[in-house]
Amino acid sequence: MENDINKPYKICDVNRDKKKGIVASSLEDLLAKVPEKLGLPSENLTVVLECDGTEVDDEEYFSTLDPDTALMILHGNEKWAPNMPKCQVSLDQ
Amino acid sequence: MENDINKPYKICDVNRDKKKGIVASSLEDLLAKVPEKLGLPSENLTVVLECDGTEVDDEEYFSTLDPDTALMILHGNEKWAPNMPKCQVSLDQ
Repeated sequence: MENDINKPYKICDVNRDKKKGIVASSLEDLLAKVPEKLGLPSENLTVVLECDGTEVDDEEYFSTLDPDTALMILHGNEKWAPNMPKCQVSLDQ
Repeated sequence: MENDINKPYKICDVNRDKKKGIVASSLEDLLAKVPEKLGLPSENLTVVLECDGTEVDDEEYFSTLDPDTALMILHGNEKWAPNMPKCQVSLDQ
């Protein structure tokens, strides 16, 4: 473990369908817990910021994240995309 | 090292394809870490603000940047360009 400070994060998959709260003490710890939480394989995972797709690949940067930062977990060749709010178009007159 | 204050930054390449979080204590420290992070050569690198292309070439200005400022790393003759949001044009009638 990098340190003993457990912090909460919000993790989601590439489609933002599954979103879960998780507590982790390090990036390594987070990556160990993610597969079971999101039903993802345990290899070829990439952590990015949900807001803008910035990759988080080192413990030093990970440790600067605010509590409850939203993180997207990508598997294999999955790509981050911005969150497009769905809108409802009504043709009623 | 210019000082001991490590701050987080978001770095990207000229195409904004690769975006990574990084922690650095100075401009010199950032430039030392960039090549491995972004898969760029270690020479002829220029740091500019991602938002408007302002070149950051001295430590004093670098030290005034807010945490998590987005920086673009240019190599050789690469030029900054504004971020064009992708949009989908449909020709269906």
